[in-house]
Amino acid sequence: MIFAQPSRSTFPFVAFVSLVLAVLFLGMPAFAAGKTAAVSEFTLANGLDVVVIPDHRAPIVTHMVWYKAGSADEAPGKSGIAHFFEHLMFKGTKNHPAGEFEAAVAAIGGQQNAFTSNDYTAFYEKVPPSALEEMMRYEADRMRNLTLTDQVIVPERKVIMEERRMRVDNNPNALLGEELDAALFENQPYRFPVIGWMHEIAKLNRTDATAFYNRYYAPNNAIVVVAGDVTPDEVRRDAEATYGKLARGEDLPPRVRPTEPVHHAKKTVTLSDPRVTLPSFRKLWIVPSYHTARNGEAEALDLLAEILGDGTRSRLYQAFVVKKDVASSVGAYYQGTMLDDTKFAVYGATIGPTGLHDLEKGVDAEIERIKKDGVTADELAKAKKRFVRAMIFARDNQEGMARLYGSTLATGGTIKDIEDWPERIDAVTADQVKAVAVKYLDPDTAVTGYLLPAGKGDQQ
Amino acid sequence: MIFAQPSRSTFPFVAFVSLVLAVLFLGMPAFAAGKTAAVSEFTLANGLDVVVIPDHRAPIVTHMVWYKAGSADEAPGKSGIAHFFEHLMFKGTKNHPAGEFEAAVAAIGGQQNAFTSNDYTAFYEKVPPSALEEMMRYEADRMRNLTLTDQVIVPERKVIMEERRMRVDNNPNALLGEELDAALFENQPYRFPVIGWMHEIAKLNRTDATAFYNRYYAPNNAIVVVAGDVTPDEVRRDAEATYGKLARGEDLPPRVRPTEPVHHAKKTVTLSDPRVTLPSFRKLWIVPSYHTARNGEAEALDLLAEILGDGTRSRLYQAFVVKKDVASSVGAYYQGTMLDDTKFAVYGATIGPTGLHDLEKGVDAEIERIKKDGVTADELAKAKKRFVRAMIFARDNQEGMARLYGSTLATGGTIKDIEDWPERIDAVTADQVKAVAVKYLDPDTAVTGYLLPAGKGDQQ
Repeated sequence: MIFAQPSRSTFPFVAFVSLVLAVLFLGMPAFAAGKTAAVSEFTLANGLDVVVIPDHRAPIVTHMVWYKAGSADEAPGKSGIAHFFEHLMFKGTKNHPAGEFEAAVAAIGGQQNAFTSNDYTAFYEKVPPSALEEMMRYEADRMRNLTLTDQVIVPERKVIMEERRMRVDNNPNALLGEELDAALFENQPYRFPVIGWMHEIAKLNRTDATAFYNRYYAPNNAIVVVAGDVTPDEVRRDAEATYGKLARGEDLPPRVRPTEPVHHAKKTVTLSDPRVTLPSFRKLWIVPSYHTARNGEAEALDLLAEILGDGTRSRLYQAFVVKKDVASSVGAYYQGTMLDDTKFAVYGATIGPTGLHDLEKGVDAEIERIKKDGVTADELAKAKKRFVRAMIFARDNQEGMARLYGSTLATGGTIKDIEDWPERIDAVTADQVKAVAVKYLDPDTAVTGYLLPAGKGDQQ
Repeated sequence: MIFAQPSRSTFPFVAFVSLVLAVLFLGMPAFAAGKTAAVSEFTLANGLDVVVIPDHRAPIVTHMVWYKAGSADEAPGKSGIAHFFEHLMFKGTKNHPAGEFEAAVAAIGGQQNAFTSNDYTAFYEKVPPSALEEMMRYEADRMRNLTLTDQVIVPERKVIMEERRMRVDNNPNALLGEELDAALFENQPYRFPVIGWMHEIAKLNRTDATAFYNRYYAPNNAIVVVAGDVTPDEVRRDAEATYGKLARGEDLPPRVRPTEPVHHAKKTVTLSDPRVTLPSFRKLWIVPSYHTARNGEAEALDLLAEILGDGTRSRLYQAFVVKKDVASSVGAYYQGTMLDDTKFAVYGATIGPTGLHDLEKGVDAEIERIKKDGVTADELAKAKKRFVRAMIFARDNQEGMARLYGSTLATGGTIKDIEDWPERIDAVTADQVKAVAVKYLDPDTAVTGYLLPAGKGDQQ
C-alpha cells in the first residue's frame, strides 16, 4: 500500500498534482470547450457524498472512497489506528474472504491501492467502466462488514510494525521528520506520525479497531469520487444499488481539533546518524491551510513557496545551486490541502560534509529579502504561469484529478473551492505574497531540523 | 490560591519537602521513640482513602483532600480544566453560598488553600482539632454539590486568564518552561501546562466543568490526609459522619496515559526577551519517576541530583560558583513524585551578559565526568547525610508531612513506599548513581532551553 504520510517526500507531490490539475481541468481552454462534462456531486440518503468527474479520453474509470478519518482523528495513545485500516480493509469481510476483492481487480486488469494521511484514509481502484458497480459493491461491503478478529489484527499488526521499521526507523530523514512534527505542533494532532509510534502500534487491538471502524467507516463519513469514462447517471445508479443499501452511521461531531497556543520560542531538532552523508536542514513554520486561511492567504503561500523554492527557476535554487553552487538541494514547500493549520518549509542540503550553517544563513537571508522587498510583478506572473505549464505535463492523470477532489472535500473544501481556485491564484498580488512572508515566516518561532552525519553533534 | 505547577520554582520545593520529611518522620531516632503514633490508613465504604498522621506537638490539624485529577488527566483541547477547579471549589454549593466556607475557616483563625499539579488537585485547611469535623463537612459538601452555572464559571474564567497573564505570559522564564515541557514530552500529557493554554482556557465552559467534576470529584477518586493533634479513631468517626454520607462516583479506569515514543533527536528551545538580563539554560531529560522506576533507579536519580547539583556542596555549585565564579546559579533537580515518567534537569545562569555557552559546556563536562568516573563513596555518604540534615530544619512542618503522604498516594505510591524510602535511599550504591547517569543523561536526546536577553537570537 502507499503510505501517504505528508512528509516532504510524498505529500508535496500530492499537493502539487492537486494544484496543477485544478487549473488543467478547470482553467485550460482545451477543457473550456468540453464544459458539458462538468464535475457533479450528489448525496445519497444515507449521507454518502458522491463526486463524478467525467473523463472520456480512455475507457477507464478511477473509483475512490475517501474516509474523513486520518491520524489527526485518533484518540490519545492510539496513534497508527487510522493507518491500520489501510491494511485491515484488504482483509476479509462477512461476505468476502480476504483476497477475493484483490483477485477480482486483478482478473479484469485493474489496479488497486490505498493511502493514509493526517486528515483522511482513501482506497481506490482503476478499472474498466463496466466493472464500476462491482468495485462499488466490494467497497460498500468493506465499509461496514469488515471482519475484525484477533486472527486478522494480530498478524497485520506485525506487518505494520515491520513497515514502520523499514520506512521510518531505518530512515534518519523520516525519524527527523517525526521529531520535527512533534516539535512544530505543540497541540494540534498533526504532531503525531501518520503511521503511528511503534510502542503504540504494538498495543493496538481489536477493541481499538472496532471502535475506530464503527465510528468512522460509514457512508455519512465518506466521499466517493469517480473519475473517468462514465456519466453521472450511471454513477448514481450504481452508487444507489451498492452504497445506497448501507445504513447511515452515527452522527459525528464537527471535526474540531485542539489548536496551537501562541508560540514563544524558536526550536531546533538535531539528529545525527552514520547513514547521513550530506548535512541538511529543514525550517518549518505553522501557517493557515486552504481550509483555515482567510483572504487569500493560502493562495499567497502557494505562490510564495513557488517563487521562493519550487523548482529550478525559484530564488533559492538559482541562488544556491546555480550561482553559488553550495547546495545539492534547496527549496520551499507549502502543504495547503489540510483541514487545520499546516506547515510551510524551506530546506537545503550541502554539496559536501560542511557548509550547512552558511547555507542556512543564506536561505534565511533570501526569506528576509522577500519580507523586506517583496516579489516582483514579473516573477509573480511567471510563477502563476509555471503552475499552468506544469499542468500540461500532468494532464493525463485521471487519478490525480480524483485525488484533487477527494483530498479537497476530505479537508473541508468544496467543489466550488476547486473551481474558483485558478481565479483566486490569478488574483494574488505581490503585496499579498510579501504580507504572508512577513506574517508567518518569523525566525523567532521557527522550528529547524538538522540531519547530520554521526559524530557531528553540532548544527554546523 | 497557590498555583502549584511543577515548574522549577514550585515543584522541586514540594519534592524536597517530601523527601526530607519522609526521613524525618520515619527514619529519625526522635520519631522512632514515638512509634506508637504510627501513620494509619483506612478506606470508607464509598471508596474514600483516609490517611491519619498523628502529630501531637501542637493543638493544630492539617486536613487535606487530594483528588487524583491533574492537568495530565484533561481531555485534548481542554487544558486548564483541572486547575479551573482550584478556583471553582471556592464558589458556592447547593448548601453553602460562596464565601461561607472561607469565612468559617477565618472565624476560627484557620488557614486554607489549594494547589494543582499534573497528577492531582488538592485542598487543605489548617485549623484547631475541634474544627476538623466542620472542615470535613464543608469539604464533603463541595466534593459533590458544587454549583456550576455560567454565572460562576464565566467570571472565574476571566480571573484565571488574568492569573495566566500575570504568572506565565508576563514571565519569560515561565513561558520557556511551557515550551520546554511541550518539546520534552512528545506524547505524555505532562507536555501540557498545568494552568492551561490561554486559547483553551478561554473556551472552557459549563459542559467541560460539569463533565470533569462529575467524573473526578468523588470519594472513590480522593484521598483525605489528616495530620495533627488527633487520633485515628477521631478521624474515622468524623470522616464517617461527613464523607461517609457521600455516594460513590463512577468507577474510573486505571490512570494509564499515553507514553513516550523512543526519542531520536536532541532539541533546543530558545526564548529571547528584553526582560531577561542574565542568559540562562536548562537541560532536560525524561527519566523514571518513583512510580515508574524499577530497581532503585528513582532513589539513584535523587542522589545523582543531590550530588551533581542540589545545594552549595554539590559538584556544579562548587565548580562554577565557588571555584570558577562564572555562574550566578547552577544546579540539578529531579521530579520524582510523579505518576508517569518525569524529568531530570540541570540548569545554570551566567554572572554577566556572556559566557552561557562556556557554562553549558562546563556543566555538560561535569555530567560526562560522573558518567565516566562515577561518584565517590564519600560524596555519596555525604549526600545521603545532607538529606537527613535538611530534615531537621524541616521537622516542624506538619503541612509538609501531609503533602508527602498526599502526593505519594496521588501518584501511585503507598504508605509502605514512604516508610521504606529511607532504607532504599541508604541502599543506593555509587555504581547505581553512575548507572542512571549513563542510562538517562544522553546528550543526543537532551532538550535544552535558552533564556536570552532580546536581540541575542543565538544560543551563545
